[in-house]
Amino acid sequence: MKALRFVGKKLRLDEVEIPEKKSETLVRVIKSGICNTDLEIIRGYAGFEGTIGHEFVGVVEKSDERPELIGKRVVGEINVGCGKCAICQTGDLRHCPDRTVLGIHKRDGAHAEFLMLPAKNLLKVPKNIADEEAVFVEPLAAAYGITEQVEILPETKVAIVGDGKLGLLCAMTLALISKNVVLVGKYREKLRIAEKNGIESLLIGQIKEKMNRKFDVVVEASGSESGLLTSLELVKPRGKLVLKSTFHGKTSLEMWKIVVDEVSVVGSRCGKFSPALQLLSQKKISVQDLISEEFPLSKGLEAIEKARQKGILKVLLKT
Amino acid sequence: MKALRFVGKKLRLDEVEIPEKKSETLVRVIKSGICNTDLEIIRGYAGFEGTIGHEFVGVVEKSDERPELIGKRVVGEINVGCGKCAICQTGDLRHCPDRTVLGIHKRDGAHAEFLMLPAKNLLKVPKNIADEEAVFVEPLAAAYGITEQVEILPETKVAIVGDGKLGLLCAMTLALISKNVVLVGKYREKLRIAEKNGIESLLIGQIKEKMNRKFDVVVEASGSESGLLTSLELVKPRGKLVLKSTFHGKTSLEMWKIVVDEVSVVGSRCGKFSPALQLLSQKKISVQDLISEEFPLSKGLEAIEKARQKGILKVLLKT
Repeated sequence: MKALRFVGKKLRLDEVEIPEKKSETLVRVIKSGICNTDLEIIRGYAGFEGTIGHEFVGVVEKSDERPELIGKRVVGEINVGCGKCAICQTGDLRHCPDRTVLGIHKRDGAHAEFLMLPAKNLLKVPKNIADEEAVFVEPLAAAYGITEQVEILPETKVAIVGDGKLGLLCAMTLALISKNVVLVGKYREKLRIAEKNGIESLLIGQIKEKMNRKFDVVVEASGSESGLLTSLELVKPRGKLVLKSTFHGKTSLEMWKIVVDEVSVVGSRCGKFSPALQLLSQKKISVQDLISEEFPLSKGLEAIEKARQKGILKVLLKT
Repeated sequence: MKALRFVGKKLRLDEVEIPEKKSETLVRVIKSGICNTDLEIIRGYAGFEGTIGHEFVGVVEKSDERPELIGKRVVGEINVGCGKCAICQTGDLRHCPDRTVLGIHKRDGAHAEFLMLPAKNLLKVPKNIADEEAVFVEPLAAAYGITEQVEILPETKVAIVGDGKLGLLCAMTLALISKNVVLVGKYREKLRIAEKNGIESLLIGQIKEKMNRKFDVVVEASGSESGLLTSLELVKPRGKLVLKSTFHGKTSLEMWKIVVDEVSVVGSRCGKFSPALQLLSQKKISVQDLISEEFPLSKGLEAIEKARQKGILKVLLKT
């Protein structure tokens, strides 16, 4: 089968064996989505080697664990815990110290014709969710996961800094709860997507002094040091700053402001899939405008190049 | 009156007028305590000019606001809000953007014969609390304030990093609730104070690999970048890292760990005074071992030099 693999510090479209493992379930990938994490892995982040990709929708091909899933359309949670440690016993596989993560850590990923995951990681996709919607379940779950960690109420003043895919998804999902969401970004075209969804938006240069220290919750989704700085300025004393993007290496931070203003900084990574599926099924979130282009898997290298360009949102692969 | 003042980037023992302000209450200082923040102000932090000091116990000398306080022994909350803004209206003066702070920000402080504060900032000190205990109410409130922000239960695994005055107070107060408190520090003599109070302690070099990612709550009370790094290693996924020390300038941080492990970093500064007074009155906390030396205010400059030395805990001034 074809697989987009990062091996020996190089990205290649390889021809490899279809994976086989009795204890897990084989999924034929229909579509996969290119995430910024993929691009960072290619830059050498986390030392991952293997097939990249962790956003997908597919059809179950083989499953000794849950044969009733065969032929069903599924999405899959990406963390696979050891199943034995104290953390796994609580049912939360996302933080098992020995976990593997699809296309990110010690487990081949989704930019391939087939992938394997334990059956318990898979969720059936309701019929009224299209393939190109279902492929957004993982990032949508990550965005909606914020509500698992931070209380968002209708009156909560929320700013999202960063108008990439993840920032837009955060804005759209949090705007389902709060009536006071502002998206701060750099690109007019991207901000327009938020506006189309009834969300207030603002170019970063338009931030007024009087907006500083006014937001109950600020979501940093730019992954840049300057975005982090802006976020720290916007958050109010005793407010919450949610870090949604992964920063690499060391980041310089005005730590004293966190202490003096007693800000809570909340790291936020993966969310639960079932609420995300529900949002899509109930048509509460429209991801159509977030798709920039679709490539066949055979043109995977080109697709990655496209995804790297400025101003590009989600690039999909179709197997 | 005598006052220990930081003016023109120099610390001096000055002779100044006794303060007068009809709208506030005059307190004759009995004892004041030298805090690390004082030392940092002298290094030029926060650009403060004026009388330093914010930990004190005194006797009310004059009060048009609450004449019934005259002659009473008091301690005082250090933040003075504008009284008009939305934050002040909620009753929390600690985060008013226009606040002054005793001996820290736009308000003369406590290392003087007299100080002024609004009467509403003052709390009467119960008779069974000695002067040298009462002077600890401010830092004790700061330590106990952690419990306002982070849930501590009897089974919560807590590590405190930093064995200075604040670290010791944090260990002592949190050990009143949790049975699983460990103090991590650099000085055997200081750690011994914790041990004397029944608290487990550990030299920083003795931290074992297997302790990493095991603590529900880690309190960073060292104010050093290396202490912050250690704290980040000790905190478990989805755990809480409380920043209790003020860091200056920019601090370099492995931000990705906060995101991947979904750690909450909680800035924590001032606490409420009345629970701290209660702890002292009920003899639940003994601060005696935290006092290194007492100087008369007239030897204030010497006292500051002493407080700067390594291994020294609280230095008190007596007026």
